[in-house]
Amino acid sequence: MSSLEINSSSFNQETKLPSSPPLVEDSACEPLGEDLNEVEENSKDVIKFTSEKLSIDEVSQLVISPLCGAVSLFVGTTRNNFEGKKVISLEYEAYLPMAENEIRKICSDIRQKWPVKHIAVFHRLGSVPVSEASIIIAVSSAHRAESLQAVSYAIDTLKAKVPIWKKLRV
Amino acid sequence: MSSLEINSSSFNQETKLPSSPPLVEDSACEPLGEDLNEVEENSKDVIKFTSEKLSIDEVSQLVISPLCGAVSLFVGTTRNNFEGKKVISLEYEAYLPMAENEIRKICSDIRQKWPVKHIAVFHRLGSVPVSEASIIIAVSSAHRAESLQAVSYAIDTLKAKVPIWKKLRV
Repeated sequence: MSSLEINSSSFNQETKLPSSPPLVEDSACEPLGEDLNEVEENSKDVIKFTSEKLSIDEVSQLVISPLCGAVSLFVGTTRNNFEGKKVISLEYEAYLPMAENEIRKICSDIRQKWPVKHIAVFHRLGSVPVSEASIIIAVSSAHRAESLQAVSYAIDTLKAKVPIWKKLRV
Repeated sequence: MSSLEINSSSFNQETKLPSSPPLVEDSACEPLGEDLNEVEENSKDVIKFTSEKLSIDEVSQLVISPLCGAVSLFVGTTRNNFEGKKVISLEYEAYLPMAENEIRKICSDIRQKWPVKHIAVFHRLGSVPVSEASIIIAVSSAHRAESLQAVSYAIDTLKAKVPIWKKLRV
């Protein structure tokens, strides 16, 4: 499903959770740096918004590659407190077409900066109870520095630029 | 099981894989920074060497905490090539008592540098096929910067200082 298809689907400025969540998988254009008679494996960016519980194993499996020695992940979870108040859950809303486009830009920026292989960004929407994941970012690369730096960049940039909001249920 | 118990068990300078792998779990001494009438949750360092396949979900579950909003992970996987040669698997050996002590020092260093909550370091020994994990490091913290920096520090320091060797099967 392309970004445009998501744009033209049932999402609008309010968050609407799809009955079947959008899974956006694109091949990036960078050439493979390796050729060892393996089946060619195109680099991919996988972006998903969903109201379902996120799985760290599922997201990491999407980026693991025989060409890579490193996978770095960031998992954002709901904390039970905020500014001294007890928190029950966080409610996430996104302006989905723009959010998906902004995350796609972040993936593109990462590929300009570091030779990474696969990138996956999964964001949960709606209510996220304490200790459950609201976001999982995973990046694979041949060597460790690239994926570590890319994941830090991704979450910092996502927090600064992507139209996703959270409300505290206290 | 304490580090000393591992020291005095069947391990010696050659890698010997335990029939039941050592799982070392200690409470770190730092006080809890939060008190929200939750059950107190002591910080812990979990270090494990095993010949079994590593699970990213298992390791991440060990560090997820209701007090934390962030989990960062690094997963080292076997790459199918090294210096132009095709690789079938990597064989890992460790001088276990010293390796475990050095990882414990890294955990202690991390706690000096950043206010992290839980740290887990799992290392597989023996043969690790292409795309499978040889190491998983997971760190949780209230906010994201601390766990991201701690994971980078942990893998860089582990690679530089911990007596774990790999042989390529090409």
